[in-house]
Amino acid sequence: MKITNVKSYLVEDIVKPFTWQVDRPGSGDGRDPRKNFSCVMVLDTDEGISGYAKGPKGRIMMDLVERRFSSDLIGMNPLNSEKIWEKCWDTDRLEEYPLYAMAMVDIAVWDIKGKKAGLPVYKLLGGYRDEIPAYASTTSYDTLEEYRDVVEASLSAGYPSIKLHLRYRDVKTNAKLCEKVREWVGDDFSLTLDASGLWNYTDSLWFGRVLEELKFEWYEEPMREFELESYKKLCDKLDIPILAAECSDGSHWNAAEFIRRDACDIMRTSTHYKGGFTGGMKVGHVAEAFGMKAEVHGGGHNNLHLCLALPNNTYYEDLVIDVEDIEAKGQGQLKFENGMYSFKEQVAGVGIEYDHDELETISIQKYEKF
Amino acid sequence: MKITNVKSYLVEDIVKPFTWQVDRPGSGDGRDPRKNFSCVMVLDTDEGISGYAKGPKGRIMMDLVERRFSSDLIGMNPLNSEKIWEKCWDTDRLEEYPLYAMAMVDIAVWDIKGKKAGLPVYKLLGGYRDEIPAYASTTSYDTLEEYRDVVEASLSAGYPSIKLHLRYRDVKTNAKLCEKVREWVGDDFSLTLDASGLWNYTDSLWFGRVLEELKFEWYEEPMREFELESYKKLCDKLDIPILAAECSDGSHWNAAEFIRRDACDIMRTSTHYKGGFTGGMKVGHVAEAFGMKAEVHGGGHNNLHLCLALPNNTYYEDLVIDVEDIEAKGQGQLKFENGMYSFKEQVAGVGIEYDHDELETISIQKYEKF
Repeated sequence: MKITNVKSYLVEDIVKPFTWQVDRPGSGDGRDPRKNFSCVMVLDTDEGISGYAKGPKGRIMMDLVERRFSSDLIGMNPLNSEKIWEKCWDTDRLEEYPLYAMAMVDIAVWDIKGKKAGLPVYKLLGGYRDEIPAYASTTSYDTLEEYRDVVEASLSAGYPSIKLHLRYRDVKTNAKLCEKVREWVGDDFSLTLDASGLWNYTDSLWFGRVLEELKFEWYEEPMREFELESYKKLCDKLDIPILAAECSDGSHWNAAEFIRRDACDIMRTSTHYKGGFTGGMKVGHVAEAFGMKAEVHGGGHNNLHLCLALPNNTYYEDLVIDVEDIEAKGQGQLKFENGMYSFKEQVAGVGIEYDHDELETISIQKYEKF
Repeated sequence: MKITNVKSYLVEDIVKPFTWQVDRPGSGDGRDPRKNFSCVMVLDTDEGISGYAKGPKGRIMMDLVERRFSSDLIGMNPLNSEKIWEKCWDTDRLEEYPLYAMAMVDIAVWDIKGKKAGLPVYKLLGGYRDEIPAYASTTSYDTLEEYRDVVEASLSAGYPSIKLHLRYRDVKTNAKLCEKVREWVGDDFSLTLDASGLWNYTDSLWFGRVLEELKFEWYEEPMREFELESYKKLCDKLDIPILAAECSDGSHWNAAEFIRRDACDIMRTSTHYKGGFTGGMKVGHVAEAFGMKAEVHGGGHNNLHLCLALPNNTYYEDLVIDVEDIEAKGQGQLKFENGMYSFKEQVAGVGIEYDHDELETISIQKYEKF
């Protein structure tokens, strides 16, 4: 089996707007909160099977596909996914591309493998389970009332856990929010918090004590993830598990450094930030070897496959933008029932098919190697 | 003082072709060994001063300038370079851009500051010296004869030091090359070696012993820089100084991690990989505080400013492609005499001026905020 052509399409998606921390970008890609450039990559093979992957930062991806990935991939056997991953990884030293660029290649390759085998990717990767509990992962809101609406809608929708993202940097404002949410959901409900790298060590420690008091299940990315030693200090001090290594570069080699330094208690993995299924699984396996969970970051088909494959992941992360968004859950291709996510029907590969003619019509720009 | 407009131009440069490791990309940007997309970024101010920066990965830069940097920069005071750096750094968490994207912004900002002050950037940053010794940094060649030609031309040109890059991964082939080069240059000449992350720990240790025997001055990036603990082991074992942290992400926060883990003996800094002058200087200062050199990676105007500003940098890195390239040194805007690099004349800012009309003519694509 050989890759015979590489194509990519630049697509402009319309997204549902949401806000994030006050001084940080929210939804959209910087031009407009409703707009996102995406890239759909297609790998054709000599057996008539095509693999697909869709990724963010569309124009950046178009550039990388044309300049690097297309030449690297032509003639390679997509069943040798590990060899392809290694080749992309080595080129990373020169290109310093974000790992979600490598992820596109790896996802398209595994899509081909799944189709060739007639099996969903998660069965090829491990097939640990067929459905998984989801947590409602909030965006961030101006007022307590808005948080309350989303929390209540999440409870009604049946999520067994809720994760908070924050609007303001001030730790005291956030402590009040967390107290309120604990009040609303009751003492036994699972709550977690993601600070998205908002603070320094001092604020992070102070806030960790608040979360311990309020019996949150984990405390995620309080600081940017370049300071492993600050994470180590925090882990030493706090009992609440620190979840980290989401955005840090280096896939499983970076996971190994976090573990060696005792710099996290729960590892982050994902298809997006760890280089696709290959990198995401490797991170999961390293964490497992050290008795550590590897929680999958982000939703969608790709991450659901990873969630179902890995034994040491416990939740599917479901971003919930507002009440309306929560009410629409389960209407797409993924099944959401009783707080659990699964595939509605057995898929081969990733399970997203693209119509070539439609891609030609809707895309703003196209590249093909041949 | 305020930034009033942000512009960027996509330019296709023709470069002199060269090869790198056999299974890795060499010159050019992947499409063609002679071609490179670049981006010229222009920041206009309300005082009529414009700042310029030119960077690689042109189409990626065009995207980032349009989507992120332009909105972030409009209205900011370019004299508040630290504030601008912090803003870009924070957005990095979301965008995961390579640090040389931030470098573009920082360099253009310092270009404005230098012009406003009527001083070259290196005088604003520190002004430790006005000229600096350069080492000839080879590309890589198929045969010993080609290495010999370049080594001899480098000696004739007056370089006080030569750094080797390697063509093949095999450590024994490379050991023979290093023995030969030591023979050619004599016992007392300064030689260094840059493995560009070619090996694992075992090969790296074996090769380090070869370099110790041959009295090389430093041993650079034998492994990819995600494995700090492997670097620590290597530093513990070897006497030859290990130079590292060139490509690793995280600017001075990453430098701090390398230092805290005793994972390098000489720190790498640069405008390119550390986020411009601001990041490059911070890395230099962190290293200095720990009695460590911070050697500047790469040449050109920007890195020469950094070289002249930092007290704990000893060399300017001058990439030498072949004999013809070596013979042409000093013909451009930078002075090369007696193995030393300096600016030919006093410059204000970075010292590269762009002709707006010419940019409009030669550029393939243009963006302007207003």
